Amino acid sequence: MNAEIISVGTEIVLGQIVNTNAPLLARQLATLGIAADCQLAIPDRHDLMVDAIRAAWRRSSLVFVCGGLGPTADDVTLAAVAEAVGTGLTVDQQHWQWIQETFAERHQAMMPENIQQAKYLTGGSPLKNAVGLALGSWYERDGHRLVVLPGPPREFKPMVVQEVMPRLTKVVRQHVQITSRTLNFFSRPESQLMNEIAAVTADLTGVTITSYVQPDAIQVRLTVRDQLQDVASKLLDAAQDAIVKKEEPFFFGVGDDCRLANVVVDLLRKRNLRVTAAESLTGGMFQSTICSVPGASNVFDGGFVTYAAAAKEQLLGIDPQLIEKHGVVSAETAAQMAEKSRGKLGVDVGLGFTGVAGPDSLEGQPAGTVWIGLAIAGRPTQTRLCRFGAYRGRQAIRQRSVQTGLQMLYRALIK
Amino acid sequence: MNAEIISVGTEIVLGQIVNTNAPLLARQLATLGIAADCQLAIPDRHDLMVDAIRAAWRRSSLVFVCGGLGPTADDVTLAAVAEAVGTGLTVDQQHWQWIQETFAERHQAMMPENIQQAKYLTGGSPLKNAVGLALGSWYERDGHRLVVLPGPPREFKPMVVQEVMPRLTKVVRQHVQITSRTLNFFSRPESQLMNEIAAVTADLTGVTITSYVQPDAIQVRLTVRDQLQDVASKLLDAAQDAIVKKEEPFFFGVGDDCRLANVVVDLLRKRNLRVTAAESLTGGMFQSTICSVPGASNVFDGGFVTYAAAAKEQLLGIDPQLIEKHGVVSAETAAQMAEKSRGKLGVDVGLGFTGVAGPDSLEGQPAGTVWIGLAIAGRPTQTRLCRFGAYRGRQAIRQRSVQTGLQMLYRALIK
Repeated sequence: MNAEIISVGTEIVLGQIVNTNAPLLARQLATLGIAADCQLAIPDRHDLMVDAIRAAWRRSSLVFVCGGLGPTADDVTLAAVAEAVGTGLTVDQQHWQWIQETFAERHQAMMPENIQQAKYLTGGSPLKNAVGLALGSWYERDGHRLVVLPGPPREFKPMVVQEVMPRLTKVVRQHVQITSRTLNFFSRPESQLMNEIAAVTADLTGVTITSYVQPDAIQVRLTVRDQLQDVASKLLDAAQDAIVKKEEPFFFGVGDDCRLANVVVDLLRKRNLRVTAAESLTGGMFQSTICSVPGASNVFDGGFVTYAAAAKEQLLGIDPQLIEKHGVVSAETAAQMAEKSRGKLGVDVGLGFTGVAGPDSLEGQPAGTVWIGLAIAGRPTQTRLCRFGAYRGRQAIRQRSVQTGLQMLYRALIK
Repeated sequence: MNAEIISVGTEIVLGQIVNTNAPLLARQLATLGIAADCQLAIPDRHDLMVDAIRAAWRRSSLVFVCGGLGPTADDVTLAAVAEAVGTGLTVDQQHWQWIQETFAERHQAMMPENIQQAKYLTGGSPLKNAVGLALGSWYERDGHRLVVLPGPPREFKPMVVQEVMPRLTKVVRQHVQITSRTLNFFSRPESQLMNEIAAVTADLTGVTITSYVQPDAIQVRLTVRDQLQDVASKLLDAAQDAIVKKEEPFFFGVGDDCRLANVVVDLLRKRNLRVTAAESLTGGMFQSTICSVPGASNVFDGGFVTYAAAAKEQLLGIDPQLIEKHGVVSAETAAQMAEKSRGKLGVDVGLGFTGVAGPDSLEGQPAGTVWIGLAIAGRPTQTRLCRFGAYRGRQAIRQRSVQTGLQMLYRALIK
């Protein structure tokens, strides 16, 4: 099956934003063996859109039109799609009711234009938006399918994953049986991981292996086509075994939605342990990541942000002479932050994060130099030196630090 | 002048890499008033490429073909372009000599295929590659221009800036250009903001106004085309004045990169104030956001994550009876968290965040119920009740809380 992706938006064609929706969708389609061989970006101009959509609808069996579903005057996608495929627009009354209630709940004034966001292509069906107001559309005629999706990535991604992929999988499975499994690995060079995986799976035929770099992990997807379910499962098991045997130090779980923070919170809960932290360069990001997991209260009471040296002394009681002697960016300070935070809260596990987020250097250490301490009751305190200078930018260095802290904790918990 | 950009590469259409070349080129073209109204990505398949390039060459006066200039078998761009426009390929002997010398210097084995990288379109002229081996091509005929550029961004960008833009600038009339300015507003319904803006700018002709919803702001872009710089500036000033006059309570700054956290940190620094926080549902996200700003150490020493009620008592010294009486999700608790954190750190400003991130309710309050406290030395403590239940998901509720805290602080600081 050939697909085309049409991305709509003046901000895209002017280069003001980078189009990440089309590659995300293309990767999803690839898992079903669908190639999106033609990907177009055009401004939100009615005439251009109608021409482009009409041409795509004529020549391809699957067309995606992405963006321009907002309530403002430059959101003209639905009208253009309807004209191009020769249908109208229908208001989803239930959704329109929900939009009105949502505005009322937020105590915000609603505009008449908001009704746009409750419309879908007549003769098709609406697609739910998990995080935003605008519906998507799924439309089929004469063996051709057209899908309308919202532009903001935070709305786009869940609609693709939750609404579009299950429908497409049904369509594709009438012809091809596809079984897949996702393995999750700590962040590291993708090329290295994939080369190693290629080497250990060289003699496994029938399993396609693709990788997808997330900000906090590398997801490796194993896909088997055209096999009965139990044959496919055995092939996937064999591939997983070979890969995990080789990559065990980096592997942390199976599943598309498997996140390291969730795995760590789950392990802490199972082992009946509580965690805290004292954070300098990460400034609360580690604790916030723990709190992003539903049920975090089972394993986390609170902790410290100790950005300045004075706060490390005042809130944690770290000896000023220790900091004086070793510097704030040191194994000793990271260890003390971990141990003192643990002690102050009276919990089982403490982490300390101290380092140079940049852009300036600190104590003669370049941006990216980070020490992480991990103190667990009844075990010797660990420290780790990280050099994240090659990850450009303050945010990348801080995120990388949080991920490394989670990795250290994960590896300690599975021992 | 209308341009089209054709990006070639299987890794692009499979979504394995995000296409940053096209937006970079589009931004450069926009400065010359050239709109790249059609941007296509296709795999490196000869037939698809010839069709796409031929169609673009017929309908547009300026066509860019990017990627596929390497020495390997799947680098078929030059041959496809030559066929599509009906010309041949010429070897730049001087460049070919240089490639051979370069390989010798690197003690690397050269492949016969490397001669591909010394070729350009016959009848056109080669474009220098500042960092890589492959030449680009500039080709003109019958008032149409076609430019071939390499795919790797580190080669692409210098060739666009150093080779293409000077040539294009000569072609394009000097005075035609696009001037734009971005205004930033607190998150709120986009439709409402844009309707209000439309009303106050109705009599301003020549300014195009578009909006783009960011996770933490609404960016409104004002664009003027085809005007001399000083005329454009006056038009933008007039539009900005009218909009900010109406939207002053929501406006927080000018510029593509203007973020509320940066504005707040800058205001604190100018007023010589230091900030802290005690965070429950946000779990450190407010402090982490402050620390995301370079130079945060000028205004922030540290603070508290007090997720459990016990931590609020232990770390901040909040009276258990106060929590008992009013609940953790209450104005009183939020105010105490703000005041006590400020007092403990001995700084000027404290914020308290307490509420229900969900998915479960707490103390009979539904997910999304949030109280934020703001304590500033010498002023009465403020509290604000937010009902974010309509923002779906734990992360959205927490992010919204952080943004609202920043807004409260911003408004207090500009008073």
